[in-house]
Parts: sequence; C-alpha cells; structure tokens
Amino acid sequence: MTARITTGVVAPDPSVADVLQGRLDRLTKPRGSLGRLEELARWYGAARGTTTSVLRRKAVIVFAGDHGVTVEGVSAYPSEVTAQMVYNFLRGGAGINVLARHVGAEVVVVDVGIAHAFPEMEGLRRCKVRPGTANLAVGPAMTREDTEAAMAVGMAVAEELAASGVDVIGLGEMGIGNTTSSSAITAVMTGAVPRAVTGRGTGLDDAAWAHKVSVIERALAVNQPDPNDPLEVLTALGGLEIAALVGAMLGAARRRVPVVLDGFISGAAALIAVGLEPLLRGYLLASHRSVEPGHGLALDRLGLAPLLEFDLRLGEGTGAALAIGLLEAAVKIVNEMATFGEAGVSERAPS
Amino acid sequence: MTARITTGVVAPDPSVADVLQGRLDRLTKPRGSLGRLEELARWYGAARGTTTSVLRRKAVIVFAGDHGVTVEGVSAYPSEVTAQMVYNFLRGGAGINVLARHVGAEVVVVDVGIAHAFPEMEGLRRCKVRPGTANLAVGPAMTREDTEAAMAVGMAVAEELAASGVDVIGLGEMGIGNTTSSSAITAVMTGAVPRAVTGRGTGLDDAAWAHKVSVIERALAVNQPDPNDPLEVLTALGGLEIAALVGAMLGAARRRVPVVLDGFISGAAALIAVGLEPLLRGYLLASHRSVEPGHGLALDRLGLAPLLEFDLRLGEGTGAALAIGLLEAAVKIVNEMATFGEAGVSERAPS
Repeated sequence: MTARITTGVVAPDPSVADVLQGRLDRLTKPRGSLGRLEELARWYGAARGTTTSVLRRKAVIVFAGDHGVTVEGVSAYPSEVTAQMVYNFLRGGAGINVLARHVGAEVVVVDVGIAHAFPEMEGLRRCKVRPGTANLAVGPAMTREDTEAAMAVGMAVAEELAASGVDVIGLGEMGIGNTTSSSAITAVMTGAVPRAVTGRGTGLDDAAWAHKVSVIERALAVNQPDPNDPLEVLTALGGLEIAALVGAMLGAARRRVPVVLDGFISGAAALIAVGLEPLLRGYLLASHRSVEPGHGLALDRLGLAPLLEFDLRLGEGTGAALAIGLLEAAVKIVNEMATFGEAGVSERAPS
Repeated sequence: MTARITTGVVAPDPSVADVLQGRLDRLTKPRGSLGRLEELARWYGAARGTTTSVLRRKAVIVFAGDHGVTVEGVSAYPSEVTAQMVYNFLRGGAGINVLARHVGAEVVVVDVGIAHAFPEMEGLRRCKVRPGTANLAVGPAMTREDTEAAMAVGMAVAEELAASGVDVIGLGEMGIGNTTSSSAITAVMTGAVPRAVTGRGTGLDDAAWAHKVSVIERALAVNQPDPNDPLEVLTALGGLEIAALVGAMLGAARRRVPVVLDGFISGAAALIAVGLEPLLRGYLLASHRSVEPGHGLALDRLGLAPLLEFDLRLGEGTGAALAIGLLEAAVKIVNEMATFGEAGVSERAPS
C-alpha cells in the first residue's frame, strides 16, 4: 500500500488506559464488574491521551450526498429524498435529531454533494463538492480531485469541532444509494464477493436485491479498483459523503477526539480510512452491528466489537448517538464513583 | 401450580402496540429500520396501556438485605459490605448513583433485611423485615411470614412510586451472598443442576466456586423446594431483598408501570414472580445478560431477550439504569420524530 497522505495521527496512549484501570480497580465494585463500560472508559482516555479527561460536548456530523448509481434502480426511495431528509434534519424531525437531543449531542449537517441547491439555512454547512457522484456501474463515481475535496470538507468540519471543544464525534450520513457504494467498497476492501456484502438497504425485495448485486458486480468489473490503494477504491466507488466521513475520521483522530461510527456506511468509510492510516483504528468505536450483512464483515476486518445489536438500518448517525450516551456513562463511572477508601467500604477478603 | 395471591395484573394491550407500529411506519425512516428501538416503543406503550404515553420520571429501587449463608464462605467480600454499600448509595458514590444520574433516574434505597441498624437518614427507607436471612444450607432461609412481609415491602414501594407518577421502574439489589440464593432459585425454577447456574459472583477462584456449588447442592437437598410452589422456593432459598424484588415487580405491573430488570438476582426474582403471575412477563424488560451463567438460563426460561451484552456483574441496578436510557430514547422516537407527511419527504417508490 502506498500511503499518500501524512495524517498526523498518533497512537492512543496505553499508559493512560493502565492508569484508568488502576483507578477503576479502586472504585467500590468488584474488579472488572462493569465489563464493557470499563473497557470504554480505558479506550476513551487512551484516545484523548490524558488520565483526567471528561466527556461533556458531543456532536454528530451528518454528511449528505447523492449517488449517480440511483439511475440503476438500486434503492427503494427516490434520490430526492436525500435533500428532503436534509430539510428534515434542519427542522429537527429526523431520527438522528431525536436521538442526538436525547444524549445531549449537537447535530452538524453538511451538504458535501447533494443534487439540490440549498438556500442559506441555519444549521446547514454548504460544502458541496459536486451535485452527486457519477454512476459507478459505468465508470468511476468521482475524480481523485473530488475525493480529496470531499475528504478535506470532512477533515475541516471535524477539526473545527475538535478545536471548539467537542469531546467526541459521532459520524452519520444521508445519501440515497449509498449502501450500493458501501457494499462495493466493503467487497473490495475485505475480498468478499458482492452478494456477501449486499443487503436490502432501505427495503428491497428479492428481485431488486439481486439487481443491486449485479450493479455492484458491474461496478467492480468496470472500475477494477486496487484494494491496496484505498483512495482509488473510494474514488471509483464513491460517494462524496463517504469521502467526507473518511476525512472526518482522520481530522478527529489527529486532534485526539474519539470517533463513534454508526452503521454500514461509516464502517465502509472506516475500511478506507484505516487503510490510509492504520493508527486511526484506536480512535474508532463501533456503535452497533447493523442488519446489513457487509457491516459485520467490515467490523471483523477492522477488529472492532460493536456495542449494540439493535437491528438498526437507518443510518444518519442514529446508532452512534445511542453509543455516545453509553460512552458518556462509562466516562462518568471513572470520574464520579467513590473509591473503597473514600466510601469506607471493605475490600475483598484475601482468598 | 397453586396461585396463592390475586395480583391484579392484567395483560399488556396489544392494540396499543399495533397503533404505535402504525405511527412508527409513518415516521421519516424506512419501515422497521430502528429495529429494537421500535420493539421497545411498542412494548412500553402496550404495558402502559395508552397510545399517548410518555416516559419522564424514572426510578431505580435498590433493595438490600443480608444472607445467613455467608457463614459458609460463599462470597469474596465480608457481609458488612452490604451495609457499607448502602451508606455509599446514600452519599451518591456507587455505580448505580452515577448511572442513574446519567439517565435522570432517582435512586430509592430500601433496607429490607440488612444485619445493621441504620439511623434515620435522608433517602433510606427503613423497612427491615429481619436482620438477614438464615443459612439456606442448613434449613429454610426465611419463614413464609418473612417472605410475605418482604414482598409487601417491595410492592408498597413500587406502588407508591407508580402513584406518584414514576413511568418506569428499574430494579436493583445489594446483598453480599445473594448470588448463592439466586443460583439456588434458578436451579430449582429452571431444572438446571447447581453447577450450571453458579458463577463467580463478586470474584471467586476455582476452589471457592466449587465450594459455592456444594453449598447450593446442600441447600437444595436440605430444603427440597417444590418448583411448582414459587413462594416455597423463595422462602426456602431467600433472600429478603429478592422477595422485595418479587413484590416490586407485581406492584409495578398492577399499576401498569413497566419494570426494567437488572442482572442475575433480579432475573431469579423474575422466575419466582412470573411463576406466581404469568401475565407479569409482559411488563418485564431484560436490560442485559450478565456473566453469571445462570442468568442466560433464567432469561431463556422467561423468554426475555437482553438489550445489552456488556459483561456486567455489579448488580445494584446498574444494567437497568443503562437500559432505561435506551428505553427513553425509543419512546422519544415515537413521540418526537416527524412523519413523511409532516416533513414533506417522499415515501418509498412502489416496488
């Protein structure tokens, strides 16, 4: 693999995790008895690089873009829904709005490539690289310049949030057709055949699913992307919001802000991003395993164990929002629980 | 089985679940795409019995009691820790305090049988039935009168919270030695052998674990409780806080307040409670599957699928608190998301 970018990402600090585990072991509970919460607390501290980290400001970025491949009939919904859902995000009526409010996270909506001209609107970042990708079934979805521009959008938004004091970033997306790009990326990056990584997206029947598989097979045959060149894979298969997700992961990690992945789309983006920068992996939390069959393969390849198995397949960052609430709970355990000494509780008898 | 009590529990209302699913299907998301959250929303509404339910006030009740069986050396911690941890709960320094604060739930601490005389203290309900159970390895842990009195304590606290407007009740416990009672109860109620339902509790080594299994085997041989008589099982094997959990489940359910179970101890209590009143099952949510091996068997018997697999084994209601946060998210989805019509989003194309 040829690393083409200098990412500035450094490895999480294992000595912070050790210090935090020492503190966890002095808290008024049997050692290890908070299981996954203890693991989350260690992970968060190591990523932040300090034993005194807190988790206060939370954000979910929703990158949105359209996909030329929708002309092939790969989605149950029309392409216009991408823009319509962005208006829904801005009015606060979508799933991600409800769940982000619930966990106290702000929602940052970024148009990185929607085939619709938005007026200036409160809460919308207009960073369109181009109005949708080309059809990956007949050629590359993007140019290399598009890919780099969309990555730069994601990186800039993530770094700005980090600089403003955001402690954790959840990543979501909206883009009718983007499970097709994600299946294609996942197939290339994991070596799986398209049918093994292709799901029903927003709700396809058997015939439409088989058609979607054939479209992905054509895309791979036409583009023949090299799995050892993640930027080429991303450029060939799209989409703009997936490239922005890749950039956001790198931007957050180099500011030592942990990233909470959502589902299949952000998992495909993570395959690209970790391909570009293996150290990034230590900054990624898998919120859930979706019902899309390719997602489990992607998580296995990334070596990430999902927090939730909730049969989610909405995207938008909804799974990430739920996981941010659980991560915050874990960080509070370290910071707020009393130790045996503070509470005057007897430690375990010597065995 | 002889039902000895009239519980006043009525079945959840499936027509409410149907109405809520109809609403969920009109929200701006692919049908069914919020998976387990949609299931939780339906379950909550059916239990509450109204299509307009909200989830605002949340409480976790922590019932605490001591166990005579600790003289057998079945726990890694001394019996005094039960009372010490109650002081920790009242000062807000325990795991349950941190997690309940995180999800906005009040913590109600009830002494139903601790071997320690507490002064009057803010936040402690002094409802001691007796100062700890007898040693179940040599005879019944309690008398039938103790069992009924402890159940009445739990029922009264749950009904009072329900009457005051609490929307959901999480159930936790504290009682050094109570995994021994719970293993014994689970063995009797599921028909499993003691070794299959006995875990390491707060942290036993191999030899201590084998000893704990032998103590449970003795308890079952001495008491020979009849699995068809759940109150006899509870009386023989204890404990006071487990009886209070049983009463609280029944008290909450008859006020149509859903109950969020915690781990192994509340699972054992649920086996007793559902044995007394099968309709109760519809009011129970399993927050997580703990690392105690008997817990999975209990949940399977109850037909409950846990929300989380976090390797928790602390008790206190910590898993229940996490699940309450997720349940609240699910209820907000139904109540706060926009419909396709409200948001002006196109519905899926006819396939």
